[in-house]
Amino acid sequence: MSRIAYVNGAYVRHAEAGIHIEDRGYQFADGVYEVCGVRGGKLMDEAMHLERLQRSLKELRIAMPMALPALRHVLREVVRRNRISNGMVYFQVTRGVAPRDHPFPPAGTKSAIVITAKRLNEARVAASVEKGVAVVTMPDQRWARRDIKSVALLPNILAKQAAREAGAYEAWLVDRDGFVTEGSSTNAWIVDKDGRVITRALSSDILPGVTRRVLLEAARREGIEVVERPFTPDEAKAAREAFVSASSAVIIPVVRIDDAVIGNGAPGSITLRLRQAYAASGLLT
Amino acid sequence: MSRIAYVNGAYVRHAEAGIHIEDRGYQFADGVYEVCGVRGGKLMDEAMHLERLQRSLKELRIAMPMALPALRHVLREVVRRNRISNGMVYFQVTRGVAPRDHPFPPAGTKSAIVITAKRLNEARVAASVEKGVAVVTMPDQRWARRDIKSVALLPNILAKQAAREAGAYEAWLVDRDGFVTEGSSTNAWIVDKDGRVITRALSSDILPGVTRRVLLEAARREGIEVVERPFTPDEAKAAREAFVSASSAVIIPVVRIDDAVIGNGAPGSITLRLRQAYAASGLLT
Repeated sequence: MSRIAYVNGAYVRHAEAGIHIEDRGYQFADGVYEVCGVRGGKLMDEAMHLERLQRSLKELRIAMPMALPALRHVLREVVRRNRISNGMVYFQVTRGVAPRDHPFPPAGTKSAIVITAKRLNEARVAASVEKGVAVVTMPDQRWARRDIKSVALLPNILAKQAAREAGAYEAWLVDRDGFVTEGSSTNAWIVDKDGRVITRALSSDILPGVTRRVLLEAARREGIEVVERPFTPDEAKAAREAFVSASSAVIIPVVRIDDAVIGNGAPGSITLRLRQAYAASGLLT
Repeated sequence: MSRIAYVNGAYVRHAEAGIHIEDRGYQFADGVYEVCGVRGGKLMDEAMHLERLQRSLKELRIAMPMALPALRHVLREVVRRNRISNGMVYFQVTRGVAPRDHPFPPAGTKSAIVITAKRLNEARVAASVEKGVAVVTMPDQRWARRDIKSVALLPNILAKQAAREAGAYEAWLVDRDGFVTEGSSTNAWIVDKDGRVITRALSSDILPGVTRRVLLEAARREGIEVVERPFTPDEAKAAREAFVSASSAVIIPVVRIDDAVIGNGAPGSITLRLRQAYAASGLLT
């Protein structure tokens, strides 16, 4: 079976799926995206992903490429046609195709949409959850509007690549004031010695993670105290536990930050409890 | 005659020219570009553009998609096939096509190249040069490596659009310390009361403009004193002259910054002298 992608109104073979060279996503990174987890063929936290997509588009004044019910239908259809049980669906919306010029193209230029779906490497996620991963800290070089989930991801991929070359899973990015903002594709969390869960508050400095939001709710339901505030790499290195969150893998424990071993070097108990609380909400198998 | 583009080894009709949806330029802004002016069918400052392209690629560890002589040949061929006398040639190189994942794709993934050419709107440039243009200042929201000419241009297009909506031609971006970095797609210059030409020194804060470099050489040849240092919007508003430089239009005089009229509100004499000095080098008609 060949993979199928949805591109501007048509279901096409993934291998032949293309966009025009003057799509503004290609020439200007003028677009946004979402990645929605799929479990048992169902979309996880779909409403929140669609809400964030609309927010990102609104901030950039890009029109929705289709009505919300149609988009919800097509997302399901792409998942179905690719026979994804556990995986993720990726959708990207750009300002459309127009002769290259920095200002927005004329009103009426249709925004463009691409949707793909793929399986999750469950064995890899399971191994990461069981053993925990390492992160390294480095300067946050990104632009000022990290709250918009744009495809201008060049600083993110450079940070991720640097992390991998340092033998780590993720990069934790540090702002000019010396505080961790988030990971290159994840939100960053620590647990202090009193069992309080700490993650940076929402602002233009970080992405408003969907899984972050769900986990905050789960923590409160579980009676775990949550504090939304910035923390430094030093505080993180002295933390009892640490973890990252993302829509793909939900929670991955962090057991090393730079050269510091976190806790006893194994995934922390509150981290795993939060992961189970998320699973208990019926959205994680 | 239909426009022709060069895409990964083939000359194709512009209207049908496409790249794959998993080109990393589209999903991650993982690529760089150059715009080279064409005058009388010849490429302006070609060697410097190719040098900068190679530097950008090296900084991002993207391989050249073809050998330099071949690239030089194809650039000319795209100009020729599109019958461009006065205009520009645009070339974009990305890290290539690979399944979406933040880290660099496996070694051996071929980088991708797209080349297009178009005519210059000479009447529009001439009008701007004759009358001068307005600029508005706003916070610089870009990432930390503005010295790399990447396609992660979302902050640039937002700034340019804001400028246009404010009735201005360009946005001058102001860093956290209160100094102008550059324009959203141009370098920024002022001339002080003593006739000194001032522009920000090269660093990771600005793009090393090819036209900027040529103009600095031209100014020194002309015996005009040049100072490479940052300046504030207030200093710019009190300046005798101001202008922007870019490969497309070379120099455009600035006659208004925010609400301040510059000099007597007409293009400045040193600005025009520099424009003529550039023309005298035989590269500008």
